[in-house]
Amino acid sequence: MPGTNRQIRLAARPVGEVKSEDWSLAEEPVREPGEGEFAGRTRYVSLDPAMRGWLDDRPSYLPPVGLGEVMRAGSVIEVTASRHPGYQPGDFVVGTFGVQEHAVSDGRGTLKVDPALAPLSTYLGALGMPGMTAYFGLLDVGALQEGETVVVSGAAGAVGTIVGQIAKVKGCRVVGIAGGADKCAMLTEELGFDAAIDYRSEDVRKALREHAPDGIDVYFDNVGGDILDAALTRLAMRARVVVCGAISQYNSESGVQGPSNYLSLLVRRARMEGFVVFDYAKRYGEAALELAGWIGEGRIKVKEHVVRGGVEDFPATLQMLFRGENTGKLVLELQ
Amino acid sequence: MPGTNRQIRLAARPVGEVKSEDWSLAEEPVREPGEGEFAGRTRYVSLDPAMRGWLDDRPSYLPPVGLGEVMRAGSVIEVTASRHPGYQPGDFVVGTFGVQEHAVSDGRGTLKVDPALAPLSTYLGALGMPGMTAYFGLLDVGALQEGETVVVSGAAGAVGTIVGQIAKVKGCRVVGIAGGADKCAMLTEELGFDAAIDYRSEDVRKALREHAPDGIDVYFDNVGGDILDAALTRLAMRARVVVCGAISQYNSESGVQGPSNYLSLLVRRARMEGFVVFDYAKRYGEAALELAGWIGEGRIKVKEHVVRGGVEDFPATLQMLFRGENTGKLVLELQ
Repeated sequence: MPGTNRQIRLAARPVGEVKSEDWSLAEEPVREPGEGEFAGRTRYVSLDPAMRGWLDDRPSYLPPVGLGEVMRAGSVIEVTASRHPGYQPGDFVVGTFGVQEHAVSDGRGTLKVDPALAPLSTYLGALGMPGMTAYFGLLDVGALQEGETVVVSGAAGAVGTIVGQIAKVKGCRVVGIAGGADKCAMLTEELGFDAAIDYRSEDVRKALREHAPDGIDVYFDNVGGDILDAALTRLAMRARVVVCGAISQYNSESGVQGPSNYLSLLVRRARMEGFVVFDYAKRYGEAALELAGWIGEGRIKVKEHVVRGGVEDFPATLQMLFRGENTGKLVLELQ
Repeated sequence: MPGTNRQIRLAARPVGEVKSEDWSLAEEPVREPGEGEFAGRTRYVSLDPAMRGWLDDRPSYLPPVGLGEVMRAGSVIEVTASRHPGYQPGDFVVGTFGVQEHAVSDGRGTLKVDPALAPLSTYLGALGMPGMTAYFGLLDVGALQEGETVVVSGAAGAVGTIVGQIAKVKGCRVVGIAGGADKCAMLTEELGFDAAIDYRSEDVRKALREHAPDGIDVYFDNVGGDILDAALTRLAMRARVVVCGAISQYNSESGVQGPSNYLSLLVRRARMEGFVVFDYAKRYGEAALELAGWIGEGRIKVKEHVVRGGVEDFPATLQMLFRGENTGKLVLELQ
């Protein structure tokens, strides 16, 4: 010490798709921990669709990432030095440490995790925010009941794979919507979905009629756009539409496409509800325990897409998300 | 007897705005009641925005009106002859008797009403479907709490006038959105709304920022389109958007405009929910009693727009609704 801490910072507010020029690679000396702090080396960086929203300068559930700031990201770090009584070198900690090789923290908003219980990357996926999002979105916001029909879009993604598998645990009929035959085969053959719809090659509305003949009780939406509109045509009475995200719209330069079939909410006495997983922070432990149990029993399979590289690979890896090139949770493992 | 029963029948499925050619005026002999039936002469015919939806040949909460059928409408009839033990000549009955001068019924789905308690037309308005719609939409679907901020669109209409006044009874801040200075003045000066926004001359989004500075807790939507989108930008945390109707969209030939700001449901942890008042039929008595009480105490003022004429005036009167030419409940009083 001091070595060099390489970081990815936001250089410009992207318009439409995020381009490599919107980022800068910065270097700082590695900082030593002060009294009550610990320092760590980043092992895994999370890549999430929500990141696109954090780059726009408009009010949302979190303030936007400022120009010139280190990109916000969840990550797992390995503690290298500590002046905090609760952390020892060799500990692994999950937190919002940003896209950088080294981080210093006083421990607030972080969680120590045990690599003996689950692979470290899983604390960013099935046992991290995507898992929490799936759990509370489906069970609390969606108010899922046994025997219902669940449709999830972005089904092969970090959240979608967990949503569908929780719904199977709960005894539901599950239909996934994903892009590509390989993803669809994975959903039905590996994860136990009852059906999968390839939106790239199929007429989604027609396929929903076939695979959800009694209508959709819970539609968990990660994508928005035309797929949301198709799902709205197939709602069962008193259906719940869970608005988790709208990845198809995040890079739109012409504004968000509103769901023109929203009046089916009236005809079907249905509701569409949004949520932000942070509101459930006090119950993360409960969800993680239950999810870990299902994973241990083999009832939930964890799908992860691990890219190995350096922080400089973050921009290209993030693009994979919006191009639908990942299957399951996308993480960058720093070498 | 037998006299002539003149009727308005659906002649063609309208495209866009309903035109006079979409209707036909038919004549039949007046039918005498059979055993267990009564016959009556129509006194008041209800005109409702929902009627536009009944004319389209697509699945909804009610089957469409068939081509050649008498137009479906709520009305008040005066019993002229009866072979039903529960009804005597001179009784007044509310039901879905259609746009015709005479009707015969076995009493199912009808309600005897007392002209001494309220003007007959009010049983089609504040004490009829619009009143029920306002009551259950606001209190049940909207889950209104004392002290909240309520915004209602179509505020000068049959449902909107009641929604706003119920919200005032419940101790809420109420902002109405309506078309024209006269309607807006009526809302604030006569009905006690805290503010009114004239969407024809004001920037609704800006005006909402001014009149709902702490955000909207319940948005009761009768209109859809740009006004719904404006309201979505101003939701308070955990807001409820009650989807009652979308009169701005019913005549659209280019399809319904979806709310492009629907992702504010996510940011604001809000929900958008539709309902159909018929689902609350078992509780109409409860609502009518409470509404009648508030009307009696002068806390709810009944606004009605009565057009006097014959059934042949129905088509032109219906157009008034979609042109926003009525204030309060629009009824056709047959001469």
